[in-house]
Amino acid sequence: MKRTAFFISDGTGLTAEALGHALLAQFEKIEFERVTVPYIDDEEKARDLVSRINKASEIDGERPLVFDTIVNGGIREIISRADGFMVDIFGTFLNPLEQELNSSSSYSVGKSHSINNAGSYERRIHAVNFALDNDDGARTRHYDEADLILIGASRSGKTPTCLYLALQYGIKAANYPITEEDLDDQKMPAALRPHKEKLFGLTIEPERLATIRNERRPNSRYSSLQQCMHEIEEIELMYKRERIPYLNTTAYSVEEISTRIMVTTGLKRHR
Amino acid sequence: MKRTAFFISDGTGLTAEALGHALLAQFEKIEFERVTVPYIDDEEKARDLVSRINKASEIDGERPLVFDTIVNGGIREIISRADGFMVDIFGTFLNPLEQELNSSSSYSVGKSHSINNAGSYERRIHAVNFALDNDDGARTRHYDEADLILIGASRSGKTPTCLYLALQYGIKAANYPITEEDLDDQKMPAALRPHKEKLFGLTIEPERLATIRNERRPNSRYSSLQQCMHEIEEIELMYKRERIPYLNTTAYSVEEISTRIMVTTGLKRHR
Repeated sequence: MKRTAFFISDGTGLTAEALGHALLAQFEKIEFERVTVPYIDDEEKARDLVSRINKASEIDGERPLVFDTIVNGGIREIISRADGFMVDIFGTFLNPLEQELNSSSSYSVGKSHSINNAGSYERRIHAVNFALDNDDGARTRHYDEADLILIGASRSGKTPTCLYLALQYGIKAANYPITEEDLDDQKMPAALRPHKEKLFGLTIEPERLATIRNERRPNSRYSSLQQCMHEIEEIELMYKRERIPYLNTTAYSVEEISTRIMVTTGLKRHR
Repeated sequence: MKRTAFFISDGTGLTAEALGHALLAQFEKIEFERVTVPYIDDEEKARDLVSRINKASEIDGERPLVFDTIVNGGIREIISRADGFMVDIFGTFLNPLEQELNSSSSYSVGKSHSINNAGSYERRIHAVNFALDNDDGARTRHYDEADLILIGASRSGKTPTCLYLALQYGIKAANYPITEEDLDDQKMPAALRPHKEKLFGLTIEPERLATIRNERRPNSRYSSLQQCMHEIEEIELMYKRERIPYLNTTAYSVEEISTRIMVTTGLKRHR
């Protein structure tokens, strides 16, 4: 059984998608055809969309689900005439919120992902550039500026996590790979020592690490299970010895790793 | 007037935040203190959170807004006893969806940002690595693999856009800076020619570009308004001559640039 689900917005559609995907994930037995339609910001586009929804309804033989975050009442009214099951997100919650806050909604479009939240937007872009410039131990002289320094074995997930923390939260995160040479010394790399309170460690199951490394450098010493086991064991010992908070990333997505780091470190989103 | 808003989840909290921020953005006159509390996955954490909400209510003199995407009914019930205005996202929409779909929700936690959506998650991480490896024209030999090649002047927003497209949609996006030498030739750079159908151009107001460049290299020729005007003029001419679709990014966030590229090119999220 296939069912079409539309995610509709007068802005980017990211909020409608986020909520719609979260709700649909609860219905594992049903296969959904997902269609995101952003920037429905005039009545003509709304009418074209109604035709598209009605056509999907005919083809599927069942009415599509329609998740929308459209702010404009007139456009929402047009959409509501489509042959779909409407999950009208703003329509459901804005009215009760207006009453509770004793304030009227500005009914303005595309607020939440716009550049107009200027300070916070620029901070996020700066944070992305910071993550790129201070990736993989390339430079250590800007660690004073960092909010966070992620450490861990090569390919344990440091770089994507730093980029996600930057884009989502505006966190300036550098990362530094712990290499075998660092471990042989049995002490923390010199560049990290002055910034101990900013360190957060990643670790990972050696089997998973070996799989990931093999994609980059097949059949090398670097990718061998033995080498991965050795590095991870030594790295976890160092985290414990130096009392560095750490997380095993094996079962987690970058979103989960990032939100768990935010909770553990107490870092706050930059706004 | 300050009002506290809680975003609560048994998973990452990203969905509750996305919806909550979108709704609160409609109330510009009110200052919100925003608190995200992810991973509320047992009753003890739920009771601690109720105390925290009640305390905020006392301090503010008004009950906080509570946006939650908690799936577990027992935990949601505990939260509902707090002295807050409840925006119960799953409670509101899951029941009607169950009826419409004639299927029961699995009531499983943290589905939408987990690694278990395995194919799609790995694709996103590969796409991030692809963006990093093929950033800034560093390598052009993998363009066969690219879904998209962003082109434009240095500092027109190519890199953050490629990273966002990778993390959000699993799109493999390379980027290539159009330099003065390319423009003097009056023809498209050789590395791009075989991939014309994958090209998407970014442009930007010269004033804005000069500001951004000045942050990197103050008072240089590269950052001068005259230079920026010259490059942008030539680049836009090239886009028109070669019929490359393009977007002026000046007023747009990376989220807006990315969603507009998705619409224009017809690229689809990898699932």
